[in-house]
Amino acid sequence: MRAAVFLGPRRIEVADRPDPVVAAPTDAVVRVVLGCVCGSDLWHYRGESPHALGPIGHEFIGVVEQVGAEVRGVAEGELVIAPFKFSDGTCANCRAGWTSNCVAGGPFGTDGVDGGQGEAVRVPFADGTLVRIPGSGHSDEALRSLLTLSDVMATGHHAAVSAGVRPGSVVAVVGDGAVGLCAVIGARRLSAARIIALSRNPARQALARSFGATDIIAERGDAATEAVLELTDGVGVDAAVECVGTAQSFATAFAVARPGSTVGFVGVPHGVEVPIDTMFARNIGLRGGSAPVRRYIPELLNDVLEGRIHPGRVFDFETNLDGIAEAYAAMDERRAIKSLVTVGAKETRR
Amino acid sequence: MRAAVFLGPRRIEVADRPDPVVAAPTDAVVRVVLGCVCGSDLWHYRGESPHALGPIGHEFIGVVEQVGAEVRGVAEGELVIAPFKFSDGTCANCRAGWTSNCVAGGPFGTDGVDGGQGEAVRVPFADGTLVRIPGSGHSDEALRSLLTLSDVMATGHHAAVSAGVRPGSVVAVVGDGAVGLCAVIGARRLSAARIIALSRNPARQALARSFGATDIIAERGDAATEAVLELTDGVGVDAAVECVGTAQSFATAFAVARPGSTVGFVGVPHGVEVPIDTMFARNIGLRGGSAPVRRYIPELLNDVLEGRIHPGRVFDFETNLDGIAEAYAAMDERRAIKSLVTVGAKETRR
Repeated sequence: MRAAVFLGPRRIEVADRPDPVVAAPTDAVVRVVLGCVCGSDLWHYRGESPHALGPIGHEFIGVVEQVGAEVRGVAEGELVIAPFKFSDGTCANCRAGWTSNCVAGGPFGTDGVDGGQGEAVRVPFADGTLVRIPGSGHSDEALRSLLTLSDVMATGHHAAVSAGVRPGSVVAVVGDGAVGLCAVIGARRLSAARIIALSRNPARQALARSFGATDIIAERGDAATEAVLELTDGVGVDAAVECVGTAQSFATAFAVARPGSTVGFVGVPHGVEVPIDTMFARNIGLRGGSAPVRRYIPELLNDVLEGRIHPGRVFDFETNLDGIAEAYAAMDERRAIKSLVTVGAKETRR
Repeated sequence: MRAAVFLGPRRIEVADRPDPVVAAPTDAVVRVVLGCVCGSDLWHYRGESPHALGPIGHEFIGVVEQVGAEVRGVAEGELVIAPFKFSDGTCANCRAGWTSNCVAGGPFGTDGVDGGQGEAVRVPFADGTLVRIPGSGHSDEALRSLLTLSDVMATGHHAAVSAGVRPGSVVAVVGDGAVGLCAVIGARRLSAARIIALSRNPARQALARSFGATDIIAERGDAATEAVLELTDGVGVDAAVECVGTAQSFATAFAVARPGSTVGFVGVPHGVEVPIDTMFARNIGLRGGSAPVRRYIPELLNDVLEGRIHPGRVFDFETNLDGIAEAYAAMDERRAIKSLVTVGAKETRR
């Protein structure tokens, strides 16, 4: 099969890889229909984080091509969503809902595990990992939104959940990347009364508004903090949602969080120093991390299928496997919010 | 009046101070009956944190001697508990329950504000600060337990609440000081199923058990972590309660916390570096800080008065104002868990 491979910083190419096969009775092989590039892929693309050479990409939807003898939850020909990590569904962490912390699990698209930016993927623990998409004849728009449940929308939701957003909350979302925009959707879904999105990019501002943001702050740093405090009578927000992972974005999130609130974070932290003294003095909590996507997919799936949320609108660049290098470059240069990679022929879907 | 004053590291003396008077219509003057020494007092006692020279001590119960014209909630002659910080009860933070973050509030016993280790205290915002103790003729044992609601028991409760302890939780309490012991009570009150206390001191171990600890770990550092993991089938605890504030105690708390759990912290952090990468990878939250004591007193008060909890048993050293230096030294040298300071004549109570 053909699949994107990471050959080093800024070197993503398409290569021939062995066709995946069912190797364990709990495996499935999925033929990828849609994949995409994650903001977290940019860390190693830019050489700022290590990444094994080889397969890459951890977000995909596809059609089940083959299942092992013990697989019961999905069957050949079914359209499925894969979370960015596989999970056995049976360990203590999975049973508690923390599927991204499965003791036998791991991420797709690294360390030799097939990635979502390729034609097919061997999925370990198919029953504990894949979620079947009900119905048929889904529109291209619906498929794009379903793809986001693989990571970005579920991660934005995790940010909002981690920050403790509840009905009536005043929320600030720091970060206008695809995750931040999905966190706006997540906060809206949780019935936040007011959602303040920090963005200086007009296209992203418009998308944030369409997703439910009630206020836009174009300032950064101290000026952004002042603007949020001004909007909240000097009190700060009930929930601060951090969707970038840098020292600056964490600092802003803590600065706008009101006493007793929580900073929800999902950006992979890079060079972040947690202000423990501020947390103590102001009783501000910090919670988040690698989203337990498998747990979240079912509830988000209904909202997508019934047209209540449209996270697929974060894709503003589209290419196919041959354009994979450009898919990365467009995001790296901030020409794209998020790059979609169409892989499988649509007729493979049933 | 006579009151303890801080004159520099290891120099606590009793001095003559001006008799407090009602200076604002919302003030009350309280004649102290019982005060005590806090573990956090040891930081400046040892010269490890700054502290203004002058009045000291922030935990006390006493009898209202005089109230300002606008005070409605307490009256002369009533026995009251003061939280370690005063609060106006009306600002946005107080209304949200975060009384220790009152925008007009502040701590007792520092920066010239009267302290609890003295004969009397001017209490700002008496209605927003003081809690009346119902009934009369309380036993000495009950009074000691009521005194702990001023800080240490409320802080232990805050640690357990912050860590998300709920019915059936498996909890680890790191720290066997008075706060850690009160956190055991707090976890028990919240119906934890299993409470693992880390302590190598036989007297403290016994007290922890009497407060509800089901397991004692005498090891420290990596050995303590291994022991807790062994007790929890390698999974870790549902809630980790950090009651010390050092790098070592934080590290232990994070190491024993299971994925998806929260570290509740109430020890004033000193030299702590938060392991943000661990938090991200394992979805471990961090929450806590300066306890909103005023909010917690009412619920804890009932449990004390009805004999369900006995936090006053943490006092294992008793003296009066003249012995204040020894009260500090006994805790500093770990001869005492917590030092009680009897101040007012008991007959002042009604």
